[in-house]
Amino acid sequence: MHANQFPAVGIIMGSKSDLPVMEDAIRILKELGVSIEVSIVSAHRTPERMFEYAKSAAARGLKVIIAGAGGAAHLPGMVASITHLPVIGVPVKSSNSIDGWDSILSILQMPNGIPVATVALNAAKNAGLLAAQILATADEQLAQNILNFKQELKNKIEQTAEEVEKMDF
Amino acid sequence: MHANQFPAVGIIMGSKSDLPVMEDAIRILKELGVSIEVSIVSAHRTPERMFEYAKSAAARGLKVIIAGAGGAAHLPGMVASITHLPVIGVPVKSSNSIDGWDSILSILQMPNGIPVATVALNAAKNAGLLAAQILATADEQLAQNILNFKQELKNKIEQTAEEVEKMDF
Amino acid sequence: MHANQFPAVGIIMGSKSDLPVMEDAIRILKELGVSIEVSIVSAHRTPERMFEYAKSAAARGLKVIIAGAGGAAHLPGMVASITHLPVIGVPVKSSNSIDGWDSILSILQMPNGIPVATVALNAAKNAGLLAAQILATADEQLAQNILNFKQELKNKIEQTAEEVEKMDF
Amino acid sequence: MHANQFPAVGIIMGSKSDLPVMEDAIRILKELGVSIEVSIVSAHRTPERMFEYAKSAAARGLKVIIAGAGGAAHLPGMVASITHLPVIGVPVKSSNSIDGWDSILSILQMPNGIPVATVALNAAKNAGLLAAQILATADEQLAQNILNFKQELKNKIEQTAEEVEKMDF
Amino acid sequence: MHANQFPAVGIIMGSKSDLPVMEDAIRILKELGVSIEVSIVSAHRTPERMFEYAKSAAARGLKVIIAGAGGAAHLPGMVASITHLPVIGVPVKSSNSIDGWDSILSILQMPNGIPVATVALNAAKNAGLLAAQILATADEQLAQNILNFKQELKNKIEQTAEEVEKMDF
Amino acid sequence: MHANQFPAVGIIMGSKSDLPVMEDAIRILKELGVSIEVSIVSAHRTPERMFEYAKSAAARGLKVIIAGAGGAAHLPGMVASITHLPVIGVPVKSSNSIDGWDSILSILQMPNGIPVATVALNAAKNAGLLAAQILATADEQLAQNILNFKQELKNKIEQTAEEVEKMDF
Amino acid sequence: MHANQFPAVGIIMGSKSDLPVMEDAIRILKELGVSIEVSIVSAHRTPERMFEYAKSAAARGLKVIIAGAGGAAHLPGMVASITHLPVIGVPVKSSNSIDGWDSILSILQMPNGIPVATVALNAAKNAGLLAAQILATADEQLAQNILNFKQELKNKIEQTAEEVEKMDF
Amino acid sequence: MHANQFPAVGIIMGSKSDLPVMEDAIRILKELGVSIEVSIVSAHRTPERMFEYAKSAAARGLKVIIAGAGGAAHLPGMVASITHLPVIGVPVKSSNSIDGWDSILSILQMPNGIPVATVALNAAKNAGLLAAQILATADEQLAQNILNFKQELKNKIEQTAEEVEKMDF
Repeated sequence: MHANQFPAVGIIMGSKSDLPVMEDAIRILKELGVSIEVSIVSAHRTPERMFEYAKSAAARGLKVIIAGAGGAAHLPGMVASITHLPVIGVPVKSSNSIDGWDSILSILQMPNGIPVATVALNAAKNAGLLAAQILATADEQLAQNILNFKQELKNKIEQTAEEVEKMDF
Repeated sequence: MHANQFPAVGIIMGSKSDLPVMEDAIRILKELGVSIEVSIVSAHRTPERMFEYAKSAAARGLKVIIAGAGGAAHLPGMVASITHLPVIGVPVKSSNSIDGWDSILSILQMPNGIPVATVALNAAKNAGLLAAQILATADEQLAQNILNFKQELKNKIEQTAEEVEKMDF
Repeated sequence: MHANQFPAVGIIMGSKSDLPVMEDAIRILKELGVSIEVSIVSAHRTPERMFEYAKSAAARGLKVIIAGAGGAAHLPGMVASITHLPVIGVPVKSSNSIDGWDSILSILQMPNGIPVATVALNAAKNAGLLAAQILATADEQLAQNILNFKQELKNKIEQTAEEVEKMDF
Repeated sequence: MHANQFPAVGIIMGSKSDLPVMEDAIRILKELGVSIEVSIVSAHRTPERMFEYAKSAAARGLKVIIAGAGGAAHLPGMVASITHLPVIGVPVKSSNSIDGWDSILSILQMPNGIPVATVALNAAKNAGLLAAQILATADEQLAQNILNFKQELKNKIEQTAEEVEKMDF
Repeated sequence: MHANQFPAVGIIMGSKSDLPVMEDAIRILKELGVSIEVSIVSAHRTPERMFEYAKSAAARGLKVIIAGAGGAAHLPGMVASITHLPVIGVPVKSSNSIDGWDSILSILQMPNGIPVATVALNAAKNAGLLAAQILATADEQLAQNILNFKQELKNKIEQTAEEVEKMDF
Repeated sequence: MHANQFPAVGIIMGSKSDLPVMEDAIRILKELGVSIEVSIVSAHRTPERMFEYAKSAAARGLKVIIAGAGGAAHLPGMVASITHLPVIGVPVKSSNSIDGWDSILSILQMPNGIPVATVALNAAKNAGLLAAQILATADEQLAQNILNFKQELKNKIEQTAEEVEKMDF
Repeated sequence: MHANQFPAVGIIMGSKSDLPVMEDAIRILKELGVSIEVSIVSAHRTPERMFEYAKSAAARGLKVIIAGAGGAAHLPGMVASITHLPVIGVPVKSSNSIDGWDSILSILQMPNGIPVATVALNAAKNAGLLAAQILATADEQLAQNILNFKQELKNKIEQTAEEVEKMDF
Repeated sequence: MHANQFPAVGIIMGSKSDLPVMEDAIRILKELGVSIEVSIVSAHRTPERMFEYAKSAAARGLKVIIAGAGGAAHLPGMVASITHLPVIGVPVKSSNSIDGWDSILSILQMPNGIPVATVALNAAKNAGLLAAQILATADEQLAQNILNFKQELKNKIEQTAEEVEKMDF
């Protein structure tokens, strides 16, 4: 189990409507034993709050930040501009999104000097896993938990394969 | 001429490499007699500076802000989130841009509550004109200058039309 | 409250089927105390009507025009070609639209000399806000109303943030 | 030869910079013996001129209009809204175009009731051919000229085929 | 009424599943008094049939062909390669289509020498109107019918405009 | 060496301008010892020739057809509709292509019943390799040649890897 | 009937959720008398399994592999990198896919040296047919079965055509 | 300086032609004092090598892997499928790339369970920075180096801003 008594990963999103997507990050991190905090931080509606969140993140003990946002999704990039912690961006396919392209491009295409680790559209689970992989570079127990998770993925596919191979087409 | 002794329009851009594009806004506003200020403000490299610029803009007498940026272009939207002044966004086709789509979508697709008046790719001239049109809603002389500008556009086309009609194909 | 006894903002759209989208502009402008007029003006089906609407707009006291249209959306650009008032374009994702790309590109990509202030796909609320921001450059009461609106946006996010932070994941 | 003493096809474009593309339409129509007129008509810079051009087209004896334009290309659609003549639209890949998508979509995606016969990006030659095919529905000599043109195309390919088949790879 | 005793317009489509879209072309042409024939011709499943249809079209008295197809839509272009009649292509958004892009591009982007008059996605009504406009270049009664149709479009918008202007927002 | 005295693979393209791209297919097939024939066959300019080519292909001893074309690229699909031989389509990025999307989609998105084996944009070399792999399903010597080719690819990368690993960054 | 007592075609997919799409390949191959095997092989969740599958494929008697996958679809390309058998890739429009573009591009755009025969989005039926066409290059009975299948396609269209021609519009 | 005597970051790419892009990652990591190793590993041309590289990475002391690739870019995702280390993917705009979309989508759109931390097109510098940020979660000196780097970025912009503010437009 991850030893940190403070949350290691901060999970933020621009709107509560992003929560159904972002809960996948919460679930996988809890499953892997990583301590988290969750909040709503809007780059556009609460810019000061966003500023303070990012500014204080490292001092509060956070190691990684996961930020999900849709449309012209500035939250991950703006948080990354303020903190030196690794920031993982989740492009959310919000209701007014143009098939997700807007979220993806406004999170991914960051200028030189300010990276955002972007994952697939709505892929909050992968954002959680990536945060765990980052922490696991200095946490052997967590690395083992991730290896176990990967083994389970493999086992499930092999089980399904067996089922399908027995099917009578 | 525009009567304001303080600059009425602030023109900012994320990088000096955007200047060749953004100079079109400078030129047309000077031509129309609108006072301007020009600076470099990077949302990602100087987030505090961006914050202060946007926060103090109205108090310093600015009426409209034109912000140009490329790639994951967060400058126009972030400035719009902080000030209540109208913000005009110019998507710049920067060198690492994906055919301009990234700049366009990350400026245009702002969430409800925080509009950015987006113009065409690299269309800084139109951003300048739009700023002038906004100021002209309360400045009759400027409105007349814009009408004159539109008349010149028309005259030029009509002159060209005459030339083309005389061409021997 | 906005002092003008004539409507300050004209809201037009190419078809009545655009009304459910465009009502967001109507609502926010009424909420902010801006006088409006609403009508249907089709660039393609009633070109003369469009011409007259745009030609007479300034003389009738309009300060800003909001034009919504879908598909090959020519209404905002054509109105902008005829009047010198600022024109805000709302790309509407109509039923035959190709994921909204057609509306966006045919409103946004105006040639030099004729800007249209384009907002996000279906973002009529932002078009209304932008119109108010434009009028507020010369109307301090309206500026205050917009500041209040922005404060409410912030308050709502902060309230939601509090709720989410208390949630038991 | 086409018998009409008045020009049968009007070729217009939004800007003289479109002429190098549009000359392909001029050339093929002259080659096929179709009388033409050529001019510059800008929907955005000379809306009245565009109106008059389209309004008077049928009365002046024009049978078909070819309109080329780039970016937010409204010329073909607006002309089609005013005249009942068939209008052929040529999407021009202008310098500020987003890979031609803007021109194509703003010409092609016309609403029900107002068709524009759209050809490929920069395909003014095909616009000219299509105009000739339209006129040829009531002009047997012109039909024969088109058949001859198609035969030449075929001959050229067959000749090239022979050459390639003899090549020593 | 259109005087031709043979059908003037041939309407074909690649599959019966395109009929619900293509019926809009049938309806408007009948409404305008244009004689038609309707059939299923698949470029890919019945290439010989397609060949014979296109080859014999002019001789059978057809003046214009409307061809609708989805996906890799080769029918309009292949018919246009065989006949010298004007061919109007309707990109159909079939079930396996990639948002319609495949149909549009494979109909629109024809090489020099073989134009297809392409209309908007699923816009069979506009294909019918365009066919009528083409025939009307040599048929004054039909031209009048089209002018009446355009007048009706205008009247409907003006009526709707009146309704909307009376609405109490 | 491939034992067939008749050419096993027919390589065709819509225009001689496609030859610089398509030569990669010629080269790799010759290198692998596969007999070929090369010609120009245009679906749009020589539809009858295309028909005859496809119709007679199997009888003439061809086993696989490689067809390259750009823009609205109908050649591969039309050939596949006429012959039962496997057809490999090479989307060529021709001069008027919209970044290659038109060629790709009009070759790839074939309807059910008529497959085209599509390779990457301009990837004629891969088309040649695929043709060889198809023939190798019944030709052990050719299979061995392909295995050797794959081994060389591997050797080259390993050699380059060694070089890079020794570089002094 | 195909004479091979070992399965000639291996059909694999990245997840059981791809089975409803991939069953079309199974059905058509059984209909054409081609022996198959079906399994689940995930490039990302079971990389070793994928490796072994591809490595042993030729030795186990497989002649062709059909691989379906969605999103960042690496299965077809990775299998093609390991075996010298022809690999047919089916881009599956999975739930998190961006309108299918991700699957298409990550299957189609293979580098020189490693072709994947890509079919249309979700077009598993065409993948099956293509596999049969490949086997039929050395199996006359199978070639005949495919010719019969093509004849049936044609018959169905002609029957539908007759029905539609009799319809009273 | 980073204390690890083994390389902490492995930088791999599919081809030596990717080196000019990937050198930006090398440079920034060296500048920040992070030990690296660099090699060529092709998923498609050397699948076994790729397998061994990824399999042994953690045991050899690597903490983070940066993988750059173009076109159907499978390298980052395949490495991520085999190792539990965080993998950073750099989409390279290779010569046959479709404007970079293929590289981006085939790296970004990974399925649940196998994240790749994707950065912008050609943004190897950001990949290097992200790797450093990941290592810095457990290395205070490196964190300080990154903070210094960010301060320099800020200083440069402020200096440029001063220059631009003094310019005489």
